Amino acid sequence: MKKYIVGIDIGGTSCKIGLFNLSGTLLKKWDIHTNKEENGKYILNDIYDSIHHQIPDLNEIYGYGFGVPGPVVKSIVVRCVNLGWKEYDLVSIFSNLTNNNNVQVQNDANVAALGETIFGAGIGFKNSAMITLGTGIGGGIVIDGKIVDGAHGAAGELGHLSVIKGNGHLCNCGKHGCLETVASATGIKNLFNDLDQKSNVDSLLTDREHISAKMIIEAAKKGDLLALEVVESFTYYVGYACSILSITSNPAIIIIGGGVSRAGSFIIDKIDKYFREFIFIPVKDTKIVLAKLGNEAGIYGAASLVKYNG
Amino acid sequence: MKKYIVGIDIGGTSCKIGLFNLSGTLLKKWDIHTNKEENGKYILNDIYDSIHHQIPDLNEIYGYGFGVPGPVVKSIVVRCVNLGWKEYDLVSIFSNLTNNNNVQVQNDANVAALGETIFGAGIGFKNSAMITLGTGIGGGIVIDGKIVDGAHGAAGELGHLSVIKGNGHLCNCGKHGCLETVASATGIKNLFNDLDQKSNVDSLLTDREHISAKMIIEAAKKGDLLALEVVESFTYYVGYACSILSITSNPAIIIIGGGVSRAGSFIIDKIDKYFREFIFIPVKDTKIVLAKLGNEAGIYGAASLVKYNG
Repeated sequence: MKKYIVGIDIGGTSCKIGLFNLSGTLLKKWDIHTNKEENGKYILNDIYDSIHHQIPDLNEIYGYGFGVPGPVVKSIVVRCVNLGWKEYDLVSIFSNLTNNNNVQVQNDANVAALGETIFGAGIGFKNSAMITLGTGIGGGIVIDGKIVDGAHGAAGELGHLSVIKGNGHLCNCGKHGCLETVASATGIKNLFNDLDQKSNVDSLLTDREHISAKMIIEAAKKGDLLALEVVESFTYYVGYACSILSITSNPAIIIIGGGVSRAGSFIIDKIDKYFREFIFIPVKDTKIVLAKLGNEAGIYGAASLVKYNG
Repeated sequence: MKKYIVGIDIGGTSCKIGLFNLSGTLLKKWDIHTNKEENGKYILNDIYDSIHHQIPDLNEIYGYGFGVPGPVVKSIVVRCVNLGWKEYDLVSIFSNLTNNNNVQVQNDANVAALGETIFGAGIGFKNSAMITLGTGIGGGIVIDGKIVDGAHGAAGELGHLSVIKGNGHLCNCGKHGCLETVASATGIKNLFNDLDQKSNVDSLLTDREHISAKMIIEAAKKGDLLALEVVESFTYYVGYACSILSITSNPAIIIIGGGVSRAGSFIIDKIDKYFREFIFIPVKDTKIVLAKLGNEAGIYGAASLVKYNG
């Protein structure tokens, strides 16, 4: 008898696996190491073995949902640079391994947005978007309870919104001046270094070599003036990105997640303030809120892929 | 026997009505005057009378689709400032008039995007977006062949994208510096006046009182340096707006329509050039093309609402 759905969030270091019942309650979760050897050819086998070890009778599993760190177009993983995958047909491979045709896959940022929408900060809303402020910046858009993936798997990729004209910092994507270069954890350090060089404002953060985004935000909370300038600046850019969401997919709720968002209302309130400077009146009821599921958003969203498409 | 679908595009001056067969072929089209007296209470009756006059047996009509100049949320017209409508339940009113339950309504820019996608420049693509450069700027997003309307009916409202920081021109929405203030027909005149005041470049357009966007673009085509600067500037902003679409809904094709687009490849090529300066690599195959249906996009799109939802 079918009892379980499995949600799997594949990352460059570990794969998070969550076992859910058919109503979407998380029963158990665990991690396995991501073996990236030989272009990631062992990853799906390792996941299969690990699930099989937990659930000896795989017939009890209704379906499997995956979030992967790269674009997905029509269920094909276009590429995952971190894993070594390119044009990777995860669905067919995993379906063959498990003898189960109900296998779904989507980009990890999109899957996190879906998880937060259905089970986290977005409960009750069918149109939402999420911006994840981590080492990089991810984003996802949900319309009518479904992920928008886009023609090239790039829907919701707000990290690559151009916000600095001219000589912005180099982004991982090869362009200069993307949102990611000023509002991710890396971007926050960039801003600090830039302001530090041209500003006369002093800072208590004197150990410049070991500085982190977290330290900058903590210092800003304590009133450090240079750190405060940095926080005002990066929240301004995130507020702008939110305003862009409000006139493109026009979500009811925008969820801010990722490590940087752990600073809580201190940054959400500022993002909301700048958002309101940019928006036009019809979207004034858009809510900007903190994510709730933390690292579990991925497994919840991955499981939701099965629940809603299966 | 059901034979026809009617597509109706309500504007502030006239209502365009198109009679289609069930395969979407336009059989006949006509216009009626939009009577805006008493908060537009006569408009739907006039449309009903006009259709009834053409098709005496209304039982032959499968359904009716409407495009209206204002936001629509869950089939309720939130407001149409031009018509005097507010919280207007067009669907119920017209269903009662015609004794037909298959009545659909959407925002006119969204409906034009749908029409161009299904019957015009976007044939063959299910994920598209359209930017209409007219007196103002409208926009619409289509995903999987369906209009995205958004939580507040503001999806695709790219005219209100903030592009000028600080002291931009006042927009109709009450904000300053929206895309509409620099890239609509009005915006193009704004840019000309701004550049005219601060630039040393001469222009052959000496009759500054009667200048139009069309005249500016025509002059640019002939090599007028000031007009060329204006065209480079407004196409830059439209290219930026296209890049934003490419990382939000990520359409396969972006259609440029409206009166300003009649300048043809002269402006599309420039929009495409600037678009490519902003985008990140995964979306490089996005096509930017001219609209094909002109003023008929609205009736085609309105009819498509019925065809695809009915």
